[in-house]
Amino acid sequence: MNAVRVYDIITKTRDGHRLSREEIRFLIDGYTKGTIPDYQMAAWCMAVYFKGLSAEATAELTMAMVDSGEVLTWPELGEVLVDKHSTGGVGDKTTLVLLPWVAAAGVKIAKMSGRGLGHTGGTLDKLSSIPGFRFDLDRAEFIQAVEEAGLAVVGQTGNLVPADKKLYALRDVTATVDSIPLIASSIMSKKIAAGASRIVLDVKTGSGAFMEELSRAKLLAETMVDIGAKIGRRTTALVTNMDQPLGHAVGNALEVREAIATLQGEGPEDLTELCLALGAEMLIQAGKVDSPEEGRQVLLEVMEKGLPIERFRAMVAAQGGDPRIIEEAELLPQAPVCLDAVAVSSGYVNRIHTKRIGLIAMELGAGRRRIEDDIDLGAGLEVLVKVGDKIEAGQVIARVYGPNSEAVENAVRKVEASIEIGDRSVEPLSLILARVSR
Amino acid sequence: MNAVRVYDIITKTRDGHRLSREEIRFLIDGYTKGTIPDYQMAAWCMAVYFKGLSAEATAELTMAMVDSGEVLTWPELGEVLVDKHSTGGVGDKTTLVLLPWVAAAGVKIAKMSGRGLGHTGGTLDKLSSIPGFRFDLDRAEFIQAVEEAGLAVVGQTGNLVPADKKLYALRDVTATVDSIPLIASSIMSKKIAAGASRIVLDVKTGSGAFMEELSRAKLLAETMVDIGAKIGRRTTALVTNMDQPLGHAVGNALEVREAIATLQGEGPEDLTELCLALGAEMLIQAGKVDSPEEGRQVLLEVMEKGLPIERFRAMVAAQGGDPRIIEEAELLPQAPVCLDAVAVSSGYVNRIHTKRIGLIAMELGAGRRRIEDDIDLGAGLEVLVKVGDKIEAGQVIARVYGPNSEAVENAVRKVEASIEIGDRSVEPLSLILARVSR
Repeated sequence: MNAVRVYDIITKTRDGHRLSREEIRFLIDGYTKGTIPDYQMAAWCMAVYFKGLSAEATAELTMAMVDSGEVLTWPELGEVLVDKHSTGGVGDKTTLVLLPWVAAAGVKIAKMSGRGLGHTGGTLDKLSSIPGFRFDLDRAEFIQAVEEAGLAVVGQTGNLVPADKKLYALRDVTATVDSIPLIASSIMSKKIAAGASRIVLDVKTGSGAFMEELSRAKLLAETMVDIGAKIGRRTTALVTNMDQPLGHAVGNALEVREAIATLQGEGPEDLTELCLALGAEMLIQAGKVDSPEEGRQVLLEVMEKGLPIERFRAMVAAQGGDPRIIEEAELLPQAPVCLDAVAVSSGYVNRIHTKRIGLIAMELGAGRRRIEDDIDLGAGLEVLVKVGDKIEAGQVIARVYGPNSEAVENAVRKVEASIEIGDRSVEPLSLILARVSR
Repeated sequence: MNAVRVYDIITKTRDGHRLSREEIRFLIDGYTKGTIPDYQMAAWCMAVYFKGLSAEATAELTMAMVDSGEVLTWPELGEVLVDKHSTGGVGDKTTLVLLPWVAAAGVKIAKMSGRGLGHTGGTLDKLSSIPGFRFDLDRAEFIQAVEEAGLAVVGQTGNLVPADKKLYALRDVTATVDSIPLIASSIMSKKIAAGASRIVLDVKTGSGAFMEELSRAKLLAETMVDIGAKIGRRTTALVTNMDQPLGHAVGNALEVREAIATLQGEGPEDLTELCLALGAEMLIQAGKVDSPEEGRQVLLEVMEKGLPIERFRAMVAAQGGDPRIIEEAELLPQAPVCLDAVAVSSGYVNRIHTKRIGLIAMELGAGRRRIEDDIDLGAGLEVLVKVGDKIEAGQVIARVYGPNSEAVENAVRKVEASIEIGDRSVEPLSLILARVSR
């Protein structure tokens, strides 16, 4: 009976017919419990890869995955809980800046975050550069930290979305990761299970992003905003440029330093701008303002008063970290070797091979390939130029930080080869490419 | 390493890139040995379902499956071994008539056959209606039977094409059966492993066939003929009509009776015609004649001399069966109950729902759903009309044979509902729709 039903669900999906609520639930429940085997689920995922899923089925898939495990709620915080998610990119330290800044505007932030695979670690890895910083707060401590500091960031606990864990592992070995309804439901299910009632998404596109094509990034953004609308979790997405690193720093402690500078109003323009745009959306979702323009105004005002860095300081203190790192950057992990990369010719920065920059950072030790790998928190690089910049031969275009001379020299050569300098002048890149809401 | 290579093969297939000989071999060898898991193979099959395989990859897949197990050879028979395969249809007793007829024209036939799933049994089930008939000949007995009688039919022995067995079982539960390169390589691998050096295929199309659409049946025929050409096993295919039962009888002993009549020159016109057409192709493949016309002429001459039924008699005797069944049909299994189905109105036979006729036969006990089911050899039906026939109300249009009155009465009603009689006259159906060779 079971086998027949799964067979029919695969056939319907393969033939592009709509799946019902019951069929989606049956599939995800059975797969989570182990009554539906991997091979049928793999065939189904490949059918979804080719034929997609309807908007209704995608929303239902999201909720079926949410319901496969624990769902957290935060009644103690007594208000709408706004969460933010980025699909990830090179030098993306946005969360470190955005959350204290939005908290400074009066929105309580209770963030669960993860360690990451890729060029650099995830938000938790970056914050673990701060001596003493603890993520393992229990529920009471977490709530207290949010109340005291206005925000707190902890590691994910509990058995959240087991269906997604199992399904993602299967997709990863069957060439079915790259399917928009499967990506969208995976991301949204995790946010919802963690208790988010409103969601702001940063969907990255370009050579340093998972979704290289703008059209697919937009489709992913629309699919997630649709899911949010269908399941009553209002969602807004910005589609943003990842054709060059965000800010300058790529690497865990380096990114914390850059985040601190940005929280003091002295950060790179693109990072500051992105945090203003995403922060304004968070303020709208929290009901604090009515428009992006008003949101930006509020954020600029709190920055003027120096409040964002104070929220950051309070968070670090409340979570056991050493707040002196704000003034004394040398308290953060530092790589023993640092060398400059220089421009070999004069001209304009035509292109930055952003994925390569990410790989260089990973090879220096800043990221992990497998979840069990260790991270070198001090390693990484700073890319000091942006596409469109005018450059003189010999000018320093990047700084590389690593464990030994050989690794750093090797990385310097690769960085120089990853930044294309040409005669023709090119326009700076637009940062925010689309806004999706409903 | 293994996992990476399989992942890359799935990705290439998914993206419509050609697979190399080595990749196909790696996949089939690994799957047969169990080093490649079902879930990766299921994803690959679904990717093939959507994107197909190149002609080269399909031929390579066929040979990789052949090489997964034993490959039989028949040097004792000292000549080209011609085999015939039908993709299956309702009332398809062609093999029973064709092989003795072709043997009567001087072509040695050494046939391995199987039991079947579906409306009726396979060739082995049909022949097992003959009291005493043995399929379990050892090699020496088999060769001797071929030498004595000119032909022999035995059950499949040995570990032939284990890759196909495993892959088919997986496709059957993952909605990936209906893929032309996978069907074609499955059929061809089994013929080749059984030792065929030349192959004649009968690809059925229409409402009673697996390939309902003519265009897909042609594509399947072309794909198999292509495989044959690429691997040096010359293959010819006819695409033939299955929009009505072949001949009249549908059911094991009933089909043996009809085959005997046809071997005596007194069979239904369509069955006789199909055997002439396929038989002529077999004579060409065996090098006995140069053209279909010449082949038909030879076959008509041997029929004139009464030789085909004598080959059948010799085969039955050589395999331990009772040859008296040829003259005394009542020695075959007979159903206890027989009732007529009649036309409820006058007019023309517009359409016969052939798949339904097959299901009625199966429900009467003539076929099996699962391999472990028993077959009622006497059960089945005779459809006495063809599309285009002029019919009077009350005329007998079918006879139903079954185990008890209730089952037979029930079947009679269903048969009457499956034969559409209308006012407009319609053309008789063409039997042979295409010939594919190269």
